[in-house]
Amino acid sequence: MKNIVILGATGSIGTQTVDVVRRLSDRLRIVGISAHRNRDRVQQLGAELELPASRVLCGEDADLESLAQIEEADVVVVAVVGAAGIRATAAALAAGKDVALATKEVLVAAGEPITRIARETGARILPIDSEHSAILQCLEGNHASRSHLGKSPRDVARIMLTASGGPFRTWSHERIQSATREDALTHPTWPSMGKKITVDSATMMNKGLEVIEAHWLFDLPIEKIGVVVHPQSVVHSLVEFDDGSVLAQLGMPDMRAPIQYALTFPDRLDTALPRLDIANLSGPLSFEPPDEVRFPCLRIAREAAMAGGTSPAVLNAANEAAVALFLNGAIQYARIAGIVERTIAEHRHIKRPSLDDIFAADTWARKFAVEIST
Amino acid sequence: MKNIVILGATGSIGTQTVDVVRRLSDRLRIVGISAHRNRDRVQQLGAELELPASRVLCGEDADLESLAQIEEADVVVVAVVGAAGIRATAAALAAGKDVALATKEVLVAAGEPITRIARETGARILPIDSEHSAILQCLEGNHASRSHLGKSPRDVARIMLTASGGPFRTWSHERIQSATREDALTHPTWPSMGKKITVDSATMMNKGLEVIEAHWLFDLPIEKIGVVVHPQSVVHSLVEFDDGSVLAQLGMPDMRAPIQYALTFPDRLDTALPRLDIANLSGPLSFEPPDEVRFPCLRIAREAAMAGGTSPAVLNAANEAAVALFLNGAIQYARIAGIVERTIAEHRHIKRPSLDDIFAADTWARKFAVEIST
Repeated sequence: MKNIVILGATGSIGTQTVDVVRRLSDRLRIVGISAHRNRDRVQQLGAELELPASRVLCGEDADLESLAQIEEADVVVVAVVGAAGIRATAAALAAGKDVALATKEVLVAAGEPITRIARETGARILPIDSEHSAILQCLEGNHASRSHLGKSPRDVARIMLTASGGPFRTWSHERIQSATREDALTHPTWPSMGKKITVDSATMMNKGLEVIEAHWLFDLPIEKIGVVVHPQSVVHSLVEFDDGSVLAQLGMPDMRAPIQYALTFPDRLDTALPRLDIANLSGPLSFEPPDEVRFPCLRIAREAAMAGGTSPAVLNAANEAAVALFLNGAIQYARIAGIVERTIAEHRHIKRPSLDDIFAADTWARKFAVEIST
Repeated sequence: MKNIVILGATGSIGTQTVDVVRRLSDRLRIVGISAHRNRDRVQQLGAELELPASRVLCGEDADLESLAQIEEADVVVVAVVGAAGIRATAAALAAGKDVALATKEVLVAAGEPITRIARETGARILPIDSEHSAILQCLEGNHASRSHLGKSPRDVARIMLTASGGPFRTWSHERIQSATREDALTHPTWPSMGKKITVDSATMMNKGLEVIEAHWLFDLPIEKIGVVVHPQSVVHSLVEFDDGSVLAQLGMPDMRAPIQYALTFPDRLDTALPRLDIANLSGPLSFEPPDEVRFPCLRIAREAAMAGGTSPAVLNAANEAAVALFLNGAIQYARIAGIVERTIAEHRHIKRPSLDDIFAADTWARKFAVEIST
């Protein structure tokens, strides 16, 4: 029996995590939950799970770090945005708890200190992102119980993260410049994602953030992490080995699959999630190179990753601010990339930042991005 | 340094094996070779490799079993057809040598006794068929050094062998009935295969034989081994795990890749073989269910596999005889399946055959298939 804490239990990932745990009630048990704002829903969930009040937290000031460290927890699902996610991940790993990580900004902004804590305590970071789960599965085969997780993988030439290409994949550069909020919020393949990540899919910043996440998760240099556009979202990512052989992981676009893999790792269990029927797909699978002219955020993210230090944290913070401005109608779609790029260019770069340096850079970047937007 | 014996060194697989070894001359060395008929070429190759005459065999009576057991050999590549391949494989495994197996009939006809010898001595059977190499790679991930090879794999719901579908994939049932020798010898994707296997691709008997081969290689029941038609031959096979997740192995259609994987296992080395560029394929990847009405050999092979005992040996022998008759112009294409099916139906089934029982069934089946063809 594995005991699970879910930080962000009422969000999209949190809700699907609860579903996965309910399907595996003989192996998984929820022992603590938190929500950012949705007090009614988290308290109802806490009652359903028969959790004591001290294990059901809500609000911006909730002590997620203590909840992430409770004695009985084996795995902490981190699905909360912002600095709170980083602090809670650090706390869980420091206490030796495995972290099932949905919040990519934790590794984007604070990859070096976070992975250092995991190495020190031997706790594992299990990805919930479908792409990173795919890479992990390609590396593990059916040997997950004897995992190399967290160590540099053997014989890997490069990994390729797949991207749906978002709603503007076939749009011209000119047409993209005039995209509306509604255009950007129409994701072609993955159902029910949050608004922020849907816009990030449209700009392809999401894939740029995932490149940085993969760099830290798999201990691979940025140059070995590629992106390939795959509009059908059936292949979730690929690994090319030194001998040229390629492994790919495929599945239905259902986040419960990577959530379950992270929670049951190293085992795989049949919980009757929707299955891919490879012989009866609705159409063929296609692949194409990404276009960094129409999608400059990919290039900007890669450059920030190469610069390292505080640059990825600033990238992430400026992007969050710019996307919020766009969703509020304050800026045009076409300005998102420029605001992010200028914020990175103007920031005071720290090569080996502490967590506090990262939080300071994050705060500065959000403020600066808003300032230059007007 | 691994020492390699190649049985069938002048054939298609043998020649490509020599190329792989030459690319890896600091890790692999050829210490013995044999050829069935091509005396000039095998002697020239022996001279180039500076092998003593006792390590260069030619002719039907050559003592392949002794060559497969020579002290210095680490891996024996078996790429010879017929009973000689079965005896040589048994000899190599009995002497504790790993076998890199290209001749699928060894496992089709004699899977039970051959895998029993391997289990007894701890020797490994490494597949050279691209589909079975793909399955092995999906199971192993980057953990081949701690392989489960030869043991029943964990958490596998089913494996899916891909098939190009052959030249008649899009032909109607009626048109297939009148296919000529030239029609059947046109393979759409794999270059330079032998005539027999090219006809087996056209009838899809090749995939039926591969289902039986996979059954023995991976210790999986026949019901867990499926076939999916994939005309582009980029995905070489797939594994579906119990949780619904699917891993696939992809690569260029170049037999040197699975040969090298078998010879360097558990390592992967960059020898500049042609690489798959997933973002710039010549077209999309498609998949479709196989049609057992137009391709009855698939059904006949599956039924023989389920019957077990001597049935797969008879299937293989009758098919070889029927294909030879077709290639000689003695029978029409449409009669191949019927001859195989009737030979299986008429044979005296032995449930737990010895190797000698298998050889006797093989001899009987070849004779019977020719008799009923006139």
